[in-house]
Amino acid sequence: MKLMIGLAALSLNAFTVSAHDSDGALYSNEFLADVVELRDQALSHPLAYDLTESLTTEVGARLAGSPGDAKAVAWGKAKFESLGFDRVSLEPVTFDRWTRGVETAEVIAPFPHQLAITALGRTLPTAEAGLQGEVIHFSTLADLAAADPDEVEGKITFISNRMERHKDGSGYGKAVDARGTAAQVTAAKGGIAAIIRSIGTDNNRTPHTGAAKYDKTIPSVPAGAISNPDADLLVNMFKRNLPVEIKLKLTSHWDGTYTSHNVIGDILGNELADQFIVIGCHLDSWDLGTGAIDDASGCGITMAAAHLIKQHLGPLKRTIRVVLWANEEYGLSGATAYHEAHKNRMAQHILGGESDFGAGKIYALGTRVANAALPIVNTMAELLKPLGIEYSNNKSSSGADLIPLRAAGMAVFGLKQDGTQYFDYHHTANDTLDKIDRDELAQNVAAWVVVTALAANTLHDFGFDLTDQ
Amino acid sequence: MKLMIGLAALSLNAFTVSAHDSDGALYSNEFLADVVELRDQALSHPLAYDLTESLTTEVGARLAGSPGDAKAVAWGKAKFESLGFDRVSLEPVTFDRWTRGVETAEVIAPFPHQLAITALGRTLPTAEAGLQGEVIHFSTLADLAAADPDEVEGKITFISNRMERHKDGSGYGKAVDARGTAAQVTAAKGGIAAIIRSIGTDNNRTPHTGAAKYDKTIPSVPAGAISNPDADLLVNMFKRNLPVEIKLKLTSHWDGTYTSHNVIGDILGNELADQFIVIGCHLDSWDLGTGAIDDASGCGITMAAAHLIKQHLGPLKRTIRVVLWANEEYGLSGATAYHEAHKNRMAQHILGGESDFGAGKIYALGTRVANAALPIVNTMAELLKPLGIEYSNNKSSSGADLIPLRAAGMAVFGLKQDGTQYFDYHHTANDTLDKIDRDELAQNVAAWVVVTALAANTLHDFGFDLTDQ
Repeated sequence: MKLMIGLAALSLNAFTVSAHDSDGALYSNEFLADVVELRDQALSHPLAYDLTESLTTEVGARLAGSPGDAKAVAWGKAKFESLGFDRVSLEPVTFDRWTRGVETAEVIAPFPHQLAITALGRTLPTAEAGLQGEVIHFSTLADLAAADPDEVEGKITFISNRMERHKDGSGYGKAVDARGTAAQVTAAKGGIAAIIRSIGTDNNRTPHTGAAKYDKTIPSVPAGAISNPDADLLVNMFKRNLPVEIKLKLTSHWDGTYTSHNVIGDILGNELADQFIVIGCHLDSWDLGTGAIDDASGCGITMAAAHLIKQHLGPLKRTIRVVLWANEEYGLSGATAYHEAHKNRMAQHILGGESDFGAGKIYALGTRVANAALPIVNTMAELLKPLGIEYSNNKSSSGADLIPLRAAGMAVFGLKQDGTQYFDYHHTANDTLDKIDRDELAQNVAAWVVVTALAANTLHDFGFDLTDQ
Repeated sequence: MKLMIGLAALSLNAFTVSAHDSDGALYSNEFLADVVELRDQALSHPLAYDLTESLTTEVGARLAGSPGDAKAVAWGKAKFESLGFDRVSLEPVTFDRWTRGVETAEVIAPFPHQLAITALGRTLPTAEAGLQGEVIHFSTLADLAAADPDEVEGKITFISNRMERHKDGSGYGKAVDARGTAAQVTAAKGGIAAIIRSIGTDNNRTPHTGAAKYDKTIPSVPAGAISNPDADLLVNMFKRNLPVEIKLKLTSHWDGTYTSHNVIGDILGNELADQFIVIGCHLDSWDLGTGAIDDASGCGITMAAAHLIKQHLGPLKRTIRVVLWANEEYGLSGATAYHEAHKNRMAQHILGGESDFGAGKIYALGTRVANAALPIVNTMAELLKPLGIEYSNNKSSSGADLIPLRAAGMAVFGLKQDGTQYFDYHHTANDTLDKIDRDELAQNVAAWVVVTALAANTLHDFGFDLTDQ
């Protein structure tokens, strides 16, 4: 009964906001009722969790180019097939492979300590025997950038700036530049290695890896991140005004090329099968944990949403394309390759979204669509409200793998997850299945069902060649 | 004004419960007022934190018998001297040394994974090349103990029982037997190694070490603890009913004898200087973290309490003896050596307590004293109430290092700390300074000031040759 009242109100609303539609409503009441029913069933459906458990247990760590990469691709293909996707395809993605090696760091003076360190992705190795040097401490990347090269010459730099915790993860952008460029800035000033405080919000001895910028033409040095407790320890040593000396060994290195695959599962549309609603996740992970929140959960959410739509709503007008992107973590390789392969078919890519921010509860929907499509977005928002999700604005981005498509003008949406805990575990050995709450994960699926089904079951456009306002 | 009302009430109470006292009251109002003033000053005094920071930064890990052990002894002696303790002494403690080696574990089948593992203290090594075998899963130690030896023969045992989280740490006692005897029980049934789920309440990839039982005359096997997320992973593999095979390398071993020291700082009494109120901590730590909550904080708390008493209250009637015990973690060596050295002077050991449960806020006082001393305990309890501390009962134990003294009949007290988070970090690489809250630590000092000062400034006995009821 409650459902019927909700639908009556919803139907009126949909009618109101789409008076220009041919039959007076964007969607039939029957279809909307089915979506609502599926949304609510999804809240207790185990599929997304089971998929996440399967990928993290049966494959585990899957650094791009590692044995886990090939296993993950085989896993994705097999899962799409067993879930009854209409068309499963592997699209090759070739990239330069970066491989982790030994990683150790110890304070030699003033007080010997073993540090928990991890190499930053894409950085250069130390010599096999390691290197040793005095450490110079900067509070921020800006302080390092402003430093006199004479002070940095021959030293190991250390940036101690700590990332802030925010629900929307906005602390990340403010802190992550140190990870990106500390090595290059250090090299430019004659330093011999760079150490940063992990870009993370936890107090665990599990340092956070992640990609540094890399360009063969720009000098760089070996770079690693130490855990937050170890960074605190170093800062406390510097307070004593004694020289701090560290021995560092990071043998990660570039190691030829590797061909992985974007794994694509399509649920074919029955009217516009060559128009795609592109959802998905990245299939690769860092190598320290089992990549549960980054990004097995995103795969579980989007694969489950598409599967449930097919099972319960049948074919919709457009094709739902789930892409498990290759090498997001240190290359954005799958995203780049897909855009290159499909750049002449961009107008067939109607709307896209990626789930790549863990498994926390979704609290907001954002979009970047043409204004003419906002009535559809309003309908999505109405159906998301009972999940505790508000509409934010029409200036949204989405996951990193959509950057090339979004840059080409594709309309995108973002279902914003609560990221309060996300950066406790992101890119660490702690990114494991136990960090995922089944109910929160299922709420994600319910939201993705709503947005995906409504986007796929309309003939309206969402806009092409969009640019940011 | 508030203070005066409190004291008036307190004085009345003390008078009531000690009618047999020569002057009608256990303590002078002036002394009690001074204790209350010091208690309240202690709540914002940085000394305990500074000592904890110093020990963890300047010494860090200090496994008994390691280079950190000698550094810690030197640190303790120097700190007692700089804090103005009246008498500082080192008492030798000789023990068999156990040294950690390489520790790795990987699942070979059905799904390759690297596991986060740590050797259990005192266990035997694998061969240098490691060992490999099928794993047999038991939910509890009792299940392993009940197993048919034919099933265990030639296999690696795995106990997956998970420790419960409780404020009073009572989950530990229920879970820790697996750590103590899994290796011996496995050996008795022909198994080749034992793996347990860490005895801990966290979800970090930081496994918990800790001592297993060891006796040269009882067969044993190499034993390690895997982190909670890794234990979850193994359990999920077993759900698939596929054989699980693991390769294990744990080269920890026994390594001759070592002589460390109990470091003793005395604040001499002015009437009964040869009677001791024995407080303290253990100076050694496990080697994975910097031993902040186990037990640098206990050293900070008790050293600070004694120092503040001397500074602000002057000499009291009895001697306050702060003992930094040697090798608590895998030997109870300092405690045993002290009892052996002082066993003919047990009657001079009036009351003892050890701070060895982290740095959480104290919520209860327990004692084991003669009934005649309960009026003094009541006075302590009155002064502890404003700190949020209730009296529990007269059947208390105290820290592990007091076991030999308590067994010899010494009266003891326990200031019970909130241990809700303690077993997230206990015996792991995560036992570092950032786990300590300054305000909670200072509340500990305030409580230790009260109990220690009142115990030291009376001529009453607390009972000798006590036994548990």
